[in-house]
Amino acid sequence: MKTYLDNSASTRVDPAVLEEMLPYFTERYGNASSLHSFGREAREAIEKARERVARLIGAKPEEIIFTGGGTESDNLALRGAAYSRKNKARSILTSNIEHPAVLETFRDLEREGFTAIYAKVDKEGLLDAGTVAGMITQDMAVASVMLANNEIGTIQPVKEIAEECRKKDVLFHTDAVQAAGKIPIDVKILGVDMLTLASHKFHGPKGVGALFIREGVRIKPIMTGGGHERGLRSGTENVPGIVGMGKAAEIARERLDEDVERMRKFRDMLIDGLLSMEETYLNGSREKRLPNNANIRFHGIEGESLIFLLDEKGIAASTGSACSSKKLQASHVLLALGLPEWQAHGSLRLTLSRFTTKDEVAFALKEIPPAVETLRKMSPVWRKIKKGEL
Amino acid sequence: MKTYLDNSASTRVDPAVLEEMLPYFTERYGNASSLHSFGREAREAIEKARERVARLIGAKPEEIIFTGGGTESDNLALRGAAYSRKNKARSILTSNIEHPAVLETFRDLEREGFTAIYAKVDKEGLLDAGTVAGMITQDMAVASVMLANNEIGTIQPVKEIAEECRKKDVLFHTDAVQAAGKIPIDVKILGVDMLTLASHKFHGPKGVGALFIREGVRIKPIMTGGGHERGLRSGTENVPGIVGMGKAAEIARERLDEDVERMRKFRDMLIDGLLSMEETYLNGSREKRLPNNANIRFHGIEGESLIFLLDEKGIAASTGSACSSKKLQASHVLLALGLPEWQAHGSLRLTLSRFTTKDEVAFALKEIPPAVETLRKMSPVWRKIKKGEL
Repeated sequence: MKTYLDNSASTRVDPAVLEEMLPYFTERYGNASSLHSFGREAREAIEKARERVARLIGAKPEEIIFTGGGTESDNLALRGAAYSRKNKARSILTSNIEHPAVLETFRDLEREGFTAIYAKVDKEGLLDAGTVAGMITQDMAVASVMLANNEIGTIQPVKEIAEECRKKDVLFHTDAVQAAGKIPIDVKILGVDMLTLASHKFHGPKGVGALFIREGVRIKPIMTGGGHERGLRSGTENVPGIVGMGKAAEIARERLDEDVERMRKFRDMLIDGLLSMEETYLNGSREKRLPNNANIRFHGIEGESLIFLLDEKGIAASTGSACSSKKLQASHVLLALGLPEWQAHGSLRLTLSRFTTKDEVAFALKEIPPAVETLRKMSPVWRKIKKGEL
Repeated sequence: MKTYLDNSASTRVDPAVLEEMLPYFTERYGNASSLHSFGREAREAIEKARERVARLIGAKPEEIIFTGGGTESDNLALRGAAYSRKNKARSILTSNIEHPAVLETFRDLEREGFTAIYAKVDKEGLLDAGTVAGMITQDMAVASVMLANNEIGTIQPVKEIAEECRKKDVLFHTDAVQAAGKIPIDVKILGVDMLTLASHKFHGPKGVGALFIREGVRIKPIMTGGGHERGLRSGTENVPGIVGMGKAAEIARERLDEDVERMRKFRDMLIDGLLSMEETYLNGSREKRLPNNANIRFHGIEGESLIFLLDEKGIAASTGSACSSKKLQASHVLLALGLPEWQAHGSLRLTLSRFTTKDEVAFALKEIPPAVETLRKMSPVWRKIKKGEL
């Protein structure tokens, strides 16, 4: 039996999604820009998907641009906004717990001459809306604050920050990659100018994402060519991928309440079950938190070792984001909470989906505590903790 | 019955390709950066695909970067090279018949301050290697010449131009999107520094491409984030797409001789059959030409009208590239051959694949001539031609 608890890294494609994609590989394989019937049926499929994705976030279909994934959407939003405004605005703002797709893009924009400001979260992993609002200035090109964090699942006060940006004519972007399908999203209520989605985080296929760009907002493309997607994303459209993302968006919208209730129940079972262990803590706010995220800190162990022990039992989990999992550095998100390195290293991220079963949760709750005990027995750090030296 | 003769726009995914992709949607759905077994099986699948793509073009696996498609690969190669060398080299060179992914990127680089030089093809659609070599200068950041043209199928003297670039330390890129699976490609023989491939042009899925980057060549990424693909293309890898591209590359390599022989025979049947009509010509060199491309010029008609008439018969064809098919402008490629607009407008591109049958070719040869006749009967231009006024 395999127990997959790493749904923030990637999710299983919903079989209903795959079924809708299939004809577009071997039967309806036209290029959506072609004038003949093969081209027209591809075009219609894309536009139907665009409507479905728009509906998931309360947008108009023409405000949705399909891309190759969340990272591309983030880059398009941030570079596109910064480059289009660089002659009048040279500063940019984000938080210190963003996904690398945002943080590394900010660092690259710094190298290109922009001044970047990093707003800090508190020890719960939350930004203070008033403090961030006070940091927004009129010479700012773009601000970007993620809707929900990929490691600790904390939900940020995006609406309040977006409001301040609108007052000061600063473009505002949010990375909603982890939020989609887990919390309700309405771009009109949030008041954001741009919003990033990644299909494979909500049971759609990998290799396709979307960027919401509010009507009237002008940004510069990062890839040029045939002028697809209103000139903002050239390249032959990934028809089956887009169809899959559309279907996944439709299911995510229709099942949101049911999925959330199910995931939240399992999440709470995991958190409550594991926090009963000694020297064990929850990373990030318990209240302002995604319903599918449990990020637990076991003092005295190395998270990577725990991942390997659990993997032997067939449990797939992670220490932080998949994107940094091979670097063996302490997570920048956990360090941003003010944790010392030795505490940050002992964390385990368990993330759920609509396919997570009660049996899987029970199995994880049965296997994780003895695995932690095994590691603590071998750990010099744990010995220090027990002696009161740490 | 549907007759698909628009394989340069997009191809049918080979059923063997789809079969190999399928498990990666709903069973092996891990993120390739994850440490657990789901992650490892995704990583192994990507590396196997990388070997297969490398083998198609005589490269080493570590010289292959997977991207979201041909347009992204072209942008990464050209922007990546230009930006990394901009402090010492500010000029760039390409041909005047490139795909928009290259041409529009050159225009954007011009707006950013680079000096672009456009080498001109002759009336056969061919570059003169010696002339282009003479245009390569040491202050050049990058030169890009396509291996085979997407509209008229002409094959360029890339090897000779690449050689001159190497002598002068100019990075050389070739867009081989249309060449893959149609002619043998060996990056060592060609001597190129970078080479673009797009999966969906050789029976792989849409939404995935590759860029060959010769060992030792350094370029700047255009998207930043988690540092995937050796830091050159951040973003969760499209595992099923990459697996599909790998399988498609393997099949293309194994079947190359057989596919070429089949396509060339059908192409020649189409060209010879259609050229027997009056005032009908072949666009582009007959000899230095892809085995799957027939681009025919019927004087006195509008190509778009012919596409619509043929579509009613179930025949899918195009006037030029899908990317510009909706703009209703004369093709920049045909104008580059020195054709007047009224001649360029009367062209039809028929492009074949390994799935094209003799029956389809026969059906096209039966239906195209009466469709052309129908249009000529209604055409004021045709009347002028017959009166000797054009």
